[in-house]
Amino acid sequence: MLYTDDYFMKEALKEAQKAFDRDEVPVGCVVVASDRIIARGHNLTETLNDVTAHAEMQAITASAHYLGGKFLTDCSVYITLEPCPMCAGALFWARPGRIVYGAEDPKNGYMKHRPSLIHPKTLITKGVLAEESAALLRSFFEKKR
Amino acid sequence: MLYTDDYFMKEALKEAQKAFDRDEVPVGCVVVASDRIIARGHNLTETLNDVTAHAEMQAITASAHYLGGKFLTDCSVYITLEPCPMCAGALFWARPGRIVYGAEDPKNGYMKHRPSLIHPKTLITKGVLAEESAALLRSFFEKKR
Repeated sequence: MLYTDDYFMKEALKEAQKAFDRDEVPVGCVVVASDRIIARGHNLTETLNDVTAHAEMQAITASAHYLGGKFLTDCSVYITLEPCPMCAGALFWARPGRIVYGAEDPKNGYMKHRPSLIHPKTLITKGVLAEESAALLRSFFEKKR
Repeated sequence: MLYTDDYFMKEALKEAQKAFDRDEVPVGCVVVASDRIIARGHNLTETLNDVTAHAEMQAITASAHYLGGKFLTDCSVYITLEPCPMCAGALFWARPGRIVYGAEDPKNGYMKHRPSLIHPKTLITKGVLAEESAALLRSFFEKKR
């Protein structure tokens, strides 16, 4: 059992660490199809001066380019943090088979607004390596103080 | 009074027409700062094979590049159709001073999920040239049948 949720979430955490190293809020994402990572992304909102440059948004766009189609039906999307409404809305349109996320985001996460932002056909698993993800975020915001 | 809401919405409708001409769901957007259009966008989801390529998303990114900053505080965003939750979420992050939209979108619009998706400091005006926008959309979907 090499390809567990923990395995892929660790890859998403590597992406989050890349964001951290660039002084970006550390959130990472990988998209997986047939046990293979087809796209990676990390938050680049400051670097790109672009509120839309969240990890998930970039990974969704990159996955669609890789697949040659807009829909991520057979993909799993691993994200270190609960998606915000923008990213949940993008995931609604992309319709991945599964979303796995780590830490919860009570302030900006989509659950605050409404779980129905995610497509009803998408399975959701949360809490995978949540503590590692939250620790990286805490470390980032402590550094900022 | 050259620079009315109707004036800028007509420009957004020109963008929607460009989408229509490319066989894309016809939605257009312009971003205005100091009575000047600083960015334009039209829906390109099919052309770019990318669910994130909504008119607003492109216009938000382009505006931030133009302004050299992520926030659209002093801007008005004109959209021919009520934004979906993804675009509303992006507009939440970009925090424009004002959003003006045309037709309502009872099926996919953000209001269905929750008006709180938009930043509380953003003023919202709706219904500007709504009939023109809706007519273009109807004409698109009738063509598709």
